[in-house]
Amino acid sequence: MVNKEFIEQLDEKYGIKFHKIELLEEAFTHSSYANEHPEGSRDYEKLEFLGDAVLELAISDYLYRHYPKLNEGELTRMRSNIVRTEGFSEFAIECGFQDQINLGKGEEKAGSRNRKTLLEDVFEAFNGALFLDQGLPAVQKFLHLTVYPLIDRGEFDDSRDYKTDLQEFLQQNGPVEIEYNTISESQLPSHFVVELKVNGKLQSHGEGHNKKSAEQQAAKAALAELE
Amino acid sequence: MVNKEFIEQLDEKYGIKFHKIELLEEAFTHSSYANEHPEGSRDYEKLEFLGDAVLELAISDYLYRHYPKLNEGELTRMRSNIVRTEGFSEFAIECGFQDQINLGKGEEKAGSRNRKTLLEDVFEAFNGALFLDQGLPAVQKFLHLTVYPLIDRGEFDDSRDYKTDLQEFLQQNGPVEIEYNTISESQLPSHFVVELKVNGKLQSHGEGHNKKSAEQQAAKAALAELE
Repeated sequence: MVNKEFIEQLDEKYGIKFHKIELLEEAFTHSSYANEHPEGSRDYEKLEFLGDAVLELAISDYLYRHYPKLNEGELTRMRSNIVRTEGFSEFAIECGFQDQINLGKGEEKAGSRNRKTLLEDVFEAFNGALFLDQGLPAVQKFLHLTVYPLIDRGEFDDSRDYKTDLQEFLQQNGPVEIEYNTISESQLPSHFVVELKVNGKLQSHGEGHNKKSAEQQAAKAALAELE
Repeated sequence: MVNKEFIEQLDEKYGIKFHKIELLEEAFTHSSYANEHPEGSRDYEKLEFLGDAVLELAISDYLYRHYPKLNEGELTRMRSNIVRTEGFSEFAIECGFQDQINLGKGEEKAGSRNRKTLLEDVFEAFNGALFLDQGLPAVQKFLHLTVYPLIDRGEFDDSRDYKTDLQEFLQQNGPVEIEYNTISESQLPSHFVVELKVNGKLQSHGEGHNKKSAEQQAAKAALAELE
């Protein structure tokens, strides 16, 4: 069951107060739990169906308004990077959803609470529930505090492969040793810091929600300085 | 250019008055026209990007609310039947969008005004423009007058193949002659009426936005009577 502290935290951190608390309960109920508690428990699958479309529109709208210079192809690629990403599971953790999931006994034993796809589903279902409870503007407000800042940091922008570009740039006049080292790594929320060394000398740093993204950011910073 | 009669008709038929008429103009402007008129013409591609997500959410929301008995898998299949369908092009024609499209000379000559994919794109772009101009509720109101009635008539429900089921039912005791004849067919809007004869005797009728759908409806009606 969704606990009181979590409900308070949702209000404090995100300004969200559910009118229909049963929608929040449903968003956090896995089918394995609903099967074990058939007296009225509904699982999150239908909210996930809705939440998937809610996130798709909210993110499309944000990209359309905030990236006026991107063309339709670039917008579509960026949208699919965001929607397809495993990042949603990290937001679910960051928002404290993980501890609220109602799981059946078998799934709990199997460690499903840490499964990325399940956490992603719960994030989608939460957004579906919020949409039903308070409409699209409430979802957009929530995403302004969670997903959108990462978009603006360029974490989903793979239109340019900075690592490859840096390598090609540096090796114009012969081989160069390029090294990426993870110097900090945390899981809740997922955050990586990477340093980039060129021929053993520190060149730049990069941060990201995963290692790949942090390395891209480090390469981007190096290119900005060197090019 | 979007003409005055069309703007009046949009208001009369659907109660839609655009605040920003330039969004409506953009929704109807093909890239071939924008290329020929670079002084300020914007093509519809970015509105189509947005409209695609707008339709996905509006339709998901409608299905979620109006089909409480469907499970998540059935909802997903029905949504993809609707969104994937070429039916959007027929709505574009029905709503009078076809004559408003700004096309380049070459595309006009090539007959692109009748191309289904282009008409679909324009329908999506129109919904993107309406969303930007007036928000999701305005889109939902418009779809209540266009797309949703077809959903409720079961035109996108392919969870059951009625034609095959009817054939199997009728041929339990040996071969039977089943015949579908199109008895009425119109294009603006697209509407088909089909009669179903069993061993030469009239059994039922079916209507639909295409021949396949009308035949399915006729088979469904026959099964309802015979089973």
